[in-house]
Amino acid sequence: MSKLYVIGTGPGGLEYLPPIARSAIAESKELVAYGLYLDLLGELIEGKTRHDRPLGEEIERARLALQLAAKGETTALISSGDIGIFAMATLVFELLEKEPEADWETIDIEVIPGISAMQAAASKIGAPLGHDFCAISLSDLLTPWETIETRLKAAGQGDFVISFYNPVSIKRDWQLGRAKEILLEHRPAATPVIIGRNLTRKDEKITVTTLAELDTTQVDMLTLVMIGNSESRHIQVGEGDSIRDWVYTPRGYSKKLVSKEANTANESATEISEANA
Amino acid sequence: MSKLYVIGTGPGGLEYLPPIARSAIAESKELVAYGLYLDLLGELIEGKTRHDRPLGEEIERARLALQLAAKGETTALISSGDIGIFAMATLVFELLEKEPEADWETIDIEVIPGISAMQAAASKIGAPLGHDFCAISLSDLLTPWETIETRLKAAGQGDFVISFYNPVSIKRDWQLGRAKEILLEHRPAATPVIIGRNLTRKDEKITVTTLAELDTTQVDMLTLVMIGNSESRHIQVGEGDSIRDWVYTPRGYSKKLVSKEANTANESATEISEANA
Repeated sequence: MSKLYVIGTGPGGLEYLPPIARSAIAESKELVAYGLYLDLLGELIEGKTRHDRPLGEEIERARLALQLAAKGETTALISSGDIGIFAMATLVFELLEKEPEADWETIDIEVIPGISAMQAAASKIGAPLGHDFCAISLSDLLTPWETIETRLKAAGQGDFVISFYNPVSIKRDWQLGRAKEILLEHRPAATPVIIGRNLTRKDEKITVTTLAELDTTQVDMLTLVMIGNSESRHIQVGEGDSIRDWVYTPRGYSKKLVSKEANTANESATEISEANA
Repeated sequence: MSKLYVIGTGPGGLEYLPPIARSAIAESKELVAYGLYLDLLGELIEGKTRHDRPLGEEIERARLALQLAAKGETTALISSGDIGIFAMATLVFELLEKEPEADWETIDIEVIPGISAMQAAASKIGAPLGHDFCAISLSDLLTPWETIETRLKAAGQGDFVISFYNPVSIKRDWQLGRAKEILLEHRPAATPVIIGRNLTRKDEKITVTTLAELDTTQVDMLTLVMIGNSESRHIQVGEGDSIRDWVYTPRGYSKKLVSKEANTANESATEISEANA
C-alpha cells in the first residue's frame, strides 16, 4: 500500500519536531512543500526528491502529493505549524472527495500534527489559552466578510480568547481594524493583546499591548494576533533589566485561588488534568 | 538564576515529545506532576526526584514547582497535552501574581507547548480543524453554567468547529446533552461529530457520529468530543476491510476547488501557508 504523510513541522526550528514527524520524513522519498519549509529541515531531507511549489499553489501541492503517493513512492506533504489548522491537510481530503483520481483510494494517509502558531505565541508569553478560546482567519477570499463578521461578534459575545490567523495582507488592510472595533463593543479597552512574529525563531518578536491601543499597521501576514478574554491578565514580574511580561487567562470566572484546605473545586481541577491525558 | 520549565508532553507516547521538551526534562532535577504522566516518560526521568501529586491537587503542584525552583533546583512542572491549554501553566502565573512568595520573581520560567487533545483527535480523523474553531470546557465548577451556555450559543451562531474539553464527569452528566440541544438549533442534525478516547495510545478509539445521534452516555472524562461546523464533511474512502472514515472542514465557504488555471484565491492560499510559518 502506498503511503502519504501529511506533516506539520511546528513553528520553526528542529527542536519542535517530534520523533514521529522525524521518522515520517526519514521514511519518505518524495517531499512536497513550499521551499522555505523544506530548507528549515536541513540535513533531514538530504538525498530526497524535493518538489518545491511556490506560495499560492496549495491545491497543486496537495494534488501532486496524492499523485506521487499513488505511484507507490512514500511521500510527505509538509507545512510548518499544525498542518491540520488553517493549512494543507484539509485540501488533501477535499481533493480525495471531490476530484479523486485513479488509485488515490489505495493510499494510506497519515496526518501528523505540529505546534500551531497560537501555541507558540501562548507559550512564549505565559498562558493566555488557559480558558475557552477560538481561532479565526481574517482572510475574506474564501469566506464572505459577512460570515467572518458574524463570527467576530459571536466570539465577542462568547468572551473567547481569540487568535487571528491571516490578520492582514498587502491587499487586505482594514479587516483587523474592523475586528478590533467589534471586539471593543464586547470587552474592556484594557484587554491584553499579544502580537507575535517569527515565533521561536532567531528574530522572534512578541509585544503585549491593549485592545484599545492595538496598532493594526504594525501587523503583517507573518504575525499572530491574540486577544485576551475579559479576565485575561497582563502582569510584569521582576525588576529592572530582568523584568518579564506575562499574559495569562485564569481557568474560570472564579477570582479566588482555591487551596487544598478549602477545596470546593476538586473535581474541576481533576478534569483539567484528565482532559489533557 | 533558578529555572522552572512548564512542559506539555503531548497526547501520549514519547514519539510526540519534541527535542525541546526532552532536553528540558533532562536538565531538570525535580519533577512535579500527576504520577501517570511521569510514568509515561519512562527512562527519561531516571535518577530524578519525583513529586507525584494526585489529581485534584493542581494548585499545590503549581505552588510546589515554584517553591522548588526558587530554592535553586532546576524544576519541571509537567502535564500531558499542551500545558497551556486548559491545564497547569495558567496556575503558575496566577500564583505568581496573586500569592507570590519570596524569591519567586527571580525564577526564569519557560513554557514548552505540546500537542493538545483536539489536535491529536483531528490528525487521527483527517482535518476537522481546517477552518475557524473554538475549544470550550464544559466544567461548570469554576465557570457559571450561564456563562458556558452563552458561549455555546455564541459558538453555534458563529458556526465554529467546537472541541469540548471536560465534556462530562461522574458528577456532571447533563451538560453535554444541553450543549447538543443548543447546537442543534444552529447547525444540521447530520453535522459530523468526532468522539476520541485514549488518542495516540494503544487503546485509542475514534468514532464518527452525527450531532443528532451523539449519545452522551458514551462519553467520559477521558473523551474529546469535536463538533464539525455546518460545512464539515464525513467521507468514507476505500472498499471492504480497508475502508477509512475521514472528517474534514473546508478552508472556506466557497464550495469549488480552485486550480492554478482559474485561480481567484491565490492570495488566500498564500496566507494559509504563511500564517503557519
